[in-house]
Amino acid sequence: MSSSGAVPHIDRNVRITLIGAGTIGLSFAALHLEFLASAAQLTILDTRPDLAEYVASTLPKYLPALLKGCEFSVRLTASLADAVRDADIVQEQGPESLHFKASIWKEVVKHAKRDALFWSSTSGITASAQAEAAGLDEGAAARLIVVHPYNPPHIMPLLEVVPSAKTKAATVDRTLEFWKTRGREPVVLKKECPGFVANRLAFALLRESIHLVRDGVLSVEELDRVVQASMGPRWAIAGPFKSYHAGGGPGGLEAFFKNIGGTVQGCWEDSGRENVGEGWEPEIFRQANEAYGVVDTSERDRLTKAVLGAVQSNQSLGSP
Amino acid sequence: MSSSGAVPHIDRNVRITLIGAGTIGLSFAALHLEFLASAAQLTILDTRPDLAEYVASTLPKYLPALLKGCEFSVRLTASLADAVRDADIVQEQGPESLHFKASIWKEVVKHAKRDALFWSSTSGITASAQAEAAGLDEGAAARLIVVHPYNPPHIMPLLEVVPSAKTKAATVDRTLEFWKTRGREPVVLKKECPGFVANRLAFALLRESIHLVRDGVLSVEELDRVVQASMGPRWAIAGPFKSYHAGGGPGGLEAFFKNIGGTVQGCWEDSGRENVGEGWEPEIFRQANEAYGVVDTSERDRLTKAVLGAVQSNQSLGSP
Repeated sequence: MSSSGAVPHIDRNVRITLIGAGTIGLSFAALHLEFLASAAQLTILDTRPDLAEYVASTLPKYLPALLKGCEFSVRLTASLADAVRDADIVQEQGPESLHFKASIWKEVVKHAKRDALFWSSTSGITASAQAEAAGLDEGAAARLIVVHPYNPPHIMPLLEVVPSAKTKAATVDRTLEFWKTRGREPVVLKKECPGFVANRLAFALLRESIHLVRDGVLSVEELDRVVQASMGPRWAIAGPFKSYHAGGGPGGLEAFFKNIGGTVQGCWEDSGRENVGEGWEPEIFRQANEAYGVVDTSERDRLTKAVLGAVQSNQSLGSP
Repeated sequence: MSSSGAVPHIDRNVRITLIGAGTIGLSFAALHLEFLASAAQLTILDTRPDLAEYVASTLPKYLPALLKGCEFSVRLTASLADAVRDADIVQEQGPESLHFKASIWKEVVKHAKRDALFWSSTSGITASAQAEAAGLDEGAAARLIVVHPYNPPHIMPLLEVVPSAKTKAATVDRTLEFWKTRGREPVVLKKECPGFVANRLAFALLRESIHLVRDGVLSVEELDRVVQASMGPRWAIAGPFKSYHAGGGPGGLEAFFKNIGGTVQGCWEDSGRENVGEGWEPEIFRQANEAYGVVDTSERDRLTKAVLGAVQSNQSLGSP
């Protein structure tokens, strides 16, 4: 967006500790390695016994082409005290359980620096709930914030940044600066709503998708083709509000609703209200398996990169 | 998808008559011109007095680079009988009113060839309703079908093809072949549901978007950034079912719902149920105006083309 102006300064000397070496953890690891002066500044904490072999075999898949084949001395450990002692940022992507998050933060605050940032990759357990369950004092709760990625984070630009009422403004600012200088798209939510924003939006469309397939209008694979040939590419460059604002011509979104508000309301009234466990599952799962088998995510990531690259290079071409 | 196999044959000698020279009509005109042996095979019917000047000034904006600057002898007329007499395909994109559609088809069938296809670009008035209101006989109703584009059709690949119960299979087949040979993405709907599919899906996500902005979670512009940095680019290459099927790993969509079905249901239960005219409008419209002013749709179209091009060229690279 702001391709002109001062080049933002990336702090390459920050020390980052990742708690949890699942797919999200290693995807974040790859992303961080792009911007660190030394791989030694990245620590990965996990209790799995095969941690070294697992990281050595999995991490390279996520690394950008430039870093592939390089030697990395990422620090691996199973000791929490050791892992967080020097960290400027402690980022957890452990199991989605309040009990786990609470017990982790309880230990982290005992050993971490007094100004370390605490980031949780949770997709739904708020910073408020985590701080309370962990019994964090004011100073620690002020530095805890949700940084929810869109999977996989080394490819997708979005980070939903969700402070609690106790999170300090300085924590939000440092978090935003970190991601902006790395070319990512952090968006701050003003409320800790269930599911945050991206999942809520996608799930709303998924619900109507399930309804239409269940109703026999089209198949799972046909519905995906509809989205891939229409709103997918459109929303890659202009979100729903901007798209419909453009659709209204010079009168914008207001003119759009004046023209076809009746149609919109008609679709809303006719929309499905399927629930999980209501019995639509077997047929939908069967169609997905039949259409896609096991999806090749490396191919998906390659194509997603191509799309993001096309948006970025063409946007810069268009700016003065 | 099927980049291998026999190269499909494009019939470049078909004669097409467009009824209605609005933005959809001229966008379709540009698309058709790419594939016709001679511009003389394209007829545009409209009663506006400045038709010639209007087409001359507007059509070139939609033409692909290759055709820009060429001389075109598109046939323009205000006489319906004259316009449809030799047409193999009569495609209407007139006002969204059943009365208009009915009166047009009533006239068209008097003058058109006995095997001409009748396509309606309507976004919501079914072929059943149009055939009945126009009092079409069986032979004419068998050739009437909805071909609903995603705006603008000269850029977006999707065409929702919606037959009525009276539409013959041969009409569906000819329509599909026409669009597939032209590299577009026609999808047949098995039911004439209100709003068809693409709009219903997009409106479901729009409803939740309105709810989140109204609830103060984030702004119109921030919500668009969320979508542009996450599901937009993702859905440009894999629709919602395929994406979540991949998200479930080897267990697919079923594993996805086993893992986070509770979160999905929680979001669904918490989702908004805003209605048109409920009072959220002024603030949402204000934010859209402030963020975007009047959107430059030629810039939007250029970026959309870049995204579609990136998907296509990288998909071909990936196939054997």
